[in-house]
Amino acid sequence: KLKELHQDDGPKLKDHLDVFDDAVIAIIITVMVLEVPLPNNTVGSYRLFMRAILIFLISFFMVANFWYENHQTFAILPRADKKFLLMNFAFLAALSLLPLLTKWLMQQPTNLAVANMGLDYLVINMLRRLMVNHTNRELFGKTGAARAFFDQITRWRIIGGFLLNIALIGVAFIQPTVAMIFYLALPIISFVFPSDRVK
Amino acid sequence: KLKELHQDDGPKLKDHLDVFDDAVIAIIITVMVLEVPLPNNTVGSYRLFMRAILIFLISFFMVANFWYENHQTFAILPRADKKFLLMNFAFLAALSLLPLLTKWLMQQPTNLAVANMGLDYLVINMLRRLMVNHTNRELFGKTGAARAFFDQITRWRIIGGFLLNIALIGVAFIQPTVAMIFYLALPIISFVFPSDRVK
Amino acid sequence: KLKELHQDDGPKLKDHLDVFDDAVIAIIITVMVLEVPLPNNTVGSYRLFMRAILIFLISFFMVANFWYENHQTFAILPRADKKFLLMNFAFLAALSLLPLLTKWLMQQPTNLAVANMGLDYLVINMLRRLMVNHTNRELFGKTGAARAFFDQITRWRIIGGFLLNIALIGVAFIQPTVAMIFYLALPIISFVFPSDRVK
Amino acid sequence: KLKELHQDDGPKLKDHLDVFDDAVIAIIITVMVLEVPLPNNTVGSYRLFMRAILIFLISFFMVANFWYENHQTFAILPRADKKFLLMNFAFLAALSLLPLLTKWLMQQPTNLAVANMGLDYLVINMLRRLMVNHTNRELFGKTGAARAFFDQITRWRIIGGFLLNIALIGVAFIQPTVAMIFYLALPIISFVFPSDRVK
Repeated sequence: KLKELHQDDGPKLKDHLDVFDDAVIAIIITVMVLEVPLPNNTVGSYRLFMRAILIFLISFFMVANFWYENHQTFAILPRADKKFLLMNFAFLAALSLLPLLTKWLMQQPTNLAVANMGLDYLVINMLRRLMVNHTNRELFGKTGAARAFFDQITRWRIIGGFLLNIALIGVAFIQPTVAMIFYLALPIISFVFPSDRVK
Repeated sequence: KLKELHQDDGPKLKDHLDVFDDAVIAIIITVMVLEVPLPNNTVGSYRLFMRAILIFLISFFMVANFWYENHQTFAILPRADKKFLLMNFAFLAALSLLPLLTKWLMQQPTNLAVANMGLDYLVINMLRRLMVNHTNRELFGKTGAARAFFDQITRWRIIGGFLLNIALIGVAFIQPTVAMIFYLALPIISFVFPSDRVK
Repeated sequence: KLKELHQDDGPKLKDHLDVFDDAVIAIIITVMVLEVPLPNNTVGSYRLFMRAILIFLISFFMVANFWYENHQTFAILPRADKKFLLMNFAFLAALSLLPLLTKWLMQQPTNLAVANMGLDYLVINMLRRLMVNHTNRELFGKTGAARAFFDQITRWRIIGGFLLNIALIGVAFIQPTVAMIFYLALPIISFVFPSDRVK
Repeated sequence: KLKELHQDDGPKLKDHLDVFDDAVIAIIITVMVLEVPLPNNTVGSYRLFMRAILIFLISFFMVANFWYENHQTFAILPRADKKFLLMNFAFLAALSLLPLLTKWLMQQPTNLAVANMGLDYLVINMLRRLMVNHTNRELFGKTGAARAFFDQITRWRIIGGFLLNIALIGVAFIQPTVAMIFYLALPIISFVFPSDRVK
């Protein structure tokens, strides 16, 4: 009897995860604002304050973009199994490091801080890719022409994304400001031209 | 097939954004309370504590009023597209700066702190106005008599709201306490006489 | 046309408020735990740590009890209007001061801290009473026998609750520990014998 | 009439608790990340940073696993009464101590910190067991063959789980690192081989 009750847990689990992800992402996106160091009465400190606000906004829209990508996956995913659950929690874990790394960047924008942000960004993107892949597999099966087509695209995107991110982490060690500009640009490009999403 | 699945995303995205906004606004409204500096055993410190509580309450009802305005928009908006998504996230970003600016005001109620609060309040209101406009356009189309009527009202409200806010930021530099009283009064007036909302 | 769209906002607003209250109360109940001061390696500091944990748990179950009372109100309330909205936000504002007052009590359990906690507890209870009253009025109308019956009960409960709370705030100034024990006992009594709720 | 309105509160209360638990667990899982101490420019401090991240991730997946177990209980529980409400809030209270104990472990990974983590983990597990038991009783009644079968299994699991946890708290005093590895392993084992769940 209990087996029966558990049998159709897939769609329920998916809906529950969707709600939970919303709450977690809402906290991630909001909680980092209180870590912005307040200015005192000097002009220099106000400039540092504005720079910290800018870093906060970059992180804010980075997370907002991930929320939108996540929305798109959940909108078409029919059910969640344990494998998807695991990928989803790994994604949330990597995402929840962003407020910490943002705090670090706001307090001491060193090469190491930018590189760590880049590394986390890489991990989050790889986990997103796994989730999108899993969703495509649920929708189109593991074989067939549609599947082969998606696998082809996916492979090149993973490799391309991976190399771009590794290159940016390298840039972070030499020119942290340039790397920061790229990290700002990437979510904007991904939002305006959503070419690497489920389509 | 995937295109089909994505086709009706507008209403879904709107519902999802509604839930997400709730979570973000709930965090914004609650998280700033822990930044109130605790009193020690002197009478003076208790008075400062009470002033900080008052500033917290002003921010609380400011955010509460924005929640209610947002509720009204979402209650009539039929669907969300990428443009609305972007306006909504910009609105949330500006709103999530309020706890930080409230913390600043509680710790050092300087002219600069009040002026920054005023500037953020202006930005939030302008973004709200854009969202209301977008909603009206979704409901009444881009042309026609009803549209022209709304555009007429909207134009004067935007200009009026903008000038009032700029004036208040000016006041903040000369008489921060007077400006604070106005910022307390504005959400109350807007709540009791909701004349500048969708009607 | 817009008037039509807004006409049936009462039930929608009630459902929306219900979701929002949940999120705010969840943050209130959780956020104060990080304010518990950590022990160092002495035995005395571990005793202080345990006392702070106890104070956290008292606040936790106080808030949990308010959540349950709120659930009961929302379960029977048919719709929300602006008056209820205002009472609800005033209730949330008073409730969101609890984490701050709990932090104060954990760091310096002085007479003043206990008295402030008691004062906030009084305000929250009075606002709850107003919300319950409003709900009864929505269900049974403003006149009639059932209404008179409820008014009779309500009047005595408000007076009784008010006097008890004032007395406890007095006790807090003389014997803070005794007052604390009463504040622990009140939510337990109210949970086990829910005599002063909508019935 | 009011009695009528309250009569069918069981399923409603269960759904409401489900939503509330989600929000509380989302805050618990996210809020502890900001307590990770940031590195300065030495190699040693970066190693400490990485260790703190690891401790954060252990806590993250511990809480994630409890979320999943909670999901499974709520997926089959038909209604919630006051007894379940009380168990659920006690569970949330014990769970919400985890961010504090994680913060302690990240800042000073002493024997006492590991032992306290273990004690809280034991309490959370016992409360989970009570909730699962309550759910089985709701589904299969208090007597009969199915019930006797579950009671038999449950009794041994409670005793086994209790002894294992007591042993681990003992280990924490002698070899905190070894105990930590076990606390990492337990949620993984419980996730991959969910033998001690409702089945």
